[in-house]
Amino acid sequence: MKKGKLYGVGTGPGDPELMTLKAVRALQEADVVAYFCKKGATGNGRGIAVAHIRPESVELPLVYPVTIEKHRKSEAYGAEIGTFFERSAQEIAVHLDAGRTVAVLSEGDPLLYGSYMHLHLRLANRYDTEVVAGVTAMSGCWSQAGLPLVQGDDILTILPGTLDEAELVKRLGETDAAVIMKVGRNLPKIRRALERAGKLDGSVYVERGTMENSYVQALDERGDDPAPYFSIILVPGWQSRPGAAAQTETAA
Amino acid sequence: MKKGKLYGVGTGPGDPELMTLKAVRALQEADVVAYFCKKGATGNGRGIAVAHIRPESVELPLVYPVTIEKHRKSEAYGAEIGTFFERSAQEIAVHLDAGRTVAVLSEGDPLLYGSYMHLHLRLANRYDTEVVAGVTAMSGCWSQAGLPLVQGDDILTILPGTLDEAELVKRLGETDAAVIMKVGRNLPKIRRALERAGKLDGSVYVERGTMENSYVQALDERGDDPAPYFSIILVPGWQSRPGAAAQTETAA
Repeated sequence: MKKGKLYGVGTGPGDPELMTLKAVRALQEADVVAYFCKKGATGNGRGIAVAHIRPESVELPLVYPVTIEKHRKSEAYGAEIGTFFERSAQEIAVHLDAGRTVAVLSEGDPLLYGSYMHLHLRLANRYDTEVVAGVTAMSGCWSQAGLPLVQGDDILTILPGTLDEAELVKRLGETDAAVIMKVGRNLPKIRRALERAGKLDGSVYVERGTMENSYVQALDERGDDPAPYFSIILVPGWQSRPGAAAQTETAA
Repeated sequence: MKKGKLYGVGTGPGDPELMTLKAVRALQEADVVAYFCKKGATGNGRGIAVAHIRPESVELPLVYPVTIEKHRKSEAYGAEIGTFFERSAQEIAVHLDAGRTVAVLSEGDPLLYGSYMHLHLRLANRYDTEVVAGVTAMSGCWSQAGLPLVQGDDILTILPGTLDEAELVKRLGETDAAVIMKVGRNLPKIRRALERAGKLDGSVYVERGTMENSYVQALDERGDDPAPYFSIILVPGWQSRPGAAAQTETAA
């Protein structure tokens, strides 16, 4: 029997219209649609793509184990999540072995900070696999904000907000532009680091970019209350920085 | 008279199927479709989107001035390109003032290294403007290569290949993952820098990701002949690095 095909499908950042034509086609071909989700929820990837999932497709939720009490870096958490990814890959392999096409939904782009890659590493060497690139959460955020991010030879650095303050200051000082992920409770620290690096002015806070209840604000006007998981801080390169307007006339 | 709306439309990296549903809709709404191109060519953005441009839409090519002889960083080049962007914005403004909807095509994502942002900075403050995020060239490349790029708290740095070798070595050493753009004649230098940073092994060379004649190769197997403009070097984070396979079991 011919084995099925595996699709890693980027759903884009949240607005269902930011799905690609190829993602829609992959869902039309899929016998099985798999997605990661938390217990008691159906996941953001499915929420974005739901209009394109065929009624006759089998849905395969991959429910993260409840590990909220355990430290993310602990060995116990590592072992549990490793087992979970292994078991998820095996569930998908059963369908692929039976000749079924499986589409795994992934918010944003599948290979950029996505859980899909844990399945990809375990399956792509054994099955016909195609990754359908998606619009990233970052792109969704700077597009929503209408904020030109980088131009020409600008260096762009993607930083987790979990870095300590001194490290953030150093890295913000050495880059032209930055995207800071995992904001959450790290917001006050990130703001201090941006101020110390001389880049608070011009930085922008975006919550749930391209989603229905999205929110854009200058970072220096936002309070210090914790930010939700789907928030990002954008630090634009020279083109958008104060005083850069004049330069746009004389530099490409 | 009601002014027209400006769309900055990301066409994605090359495969026409990687256009978003929203990009297609913007083209269906557009009275005028503008795109940057070189003299004697129609531009890659138009090539990607052409199937969705309505026959009754007016096409507005924005032809880059011939500046190949002048150094990119020279004042003469800066002045000429600044004048060109200013004139292009004015041409579009005429259509917007006449109530026409204008879609400006931009390869990849409009606000990430795209020429569209020069128009955005000149027009978005005066006209109703919407930026339609697109799949970036980078995403197209790592998806084509099936290469998981970053996970968890990985730091990702986007570097121009124009940096000098010592600077590349330093920055490659300080990041978990990297994308190196503007490869071209810089290929031998970039390879040396990756070797000195201990990251040549695992790095991947991608030409024209997601386009018809795309090409993926391990960087250490590629010769030193100049790479075309649409090539990128991908330096994956820990998940894909040699020896990382075991880690995928114990880390998220």
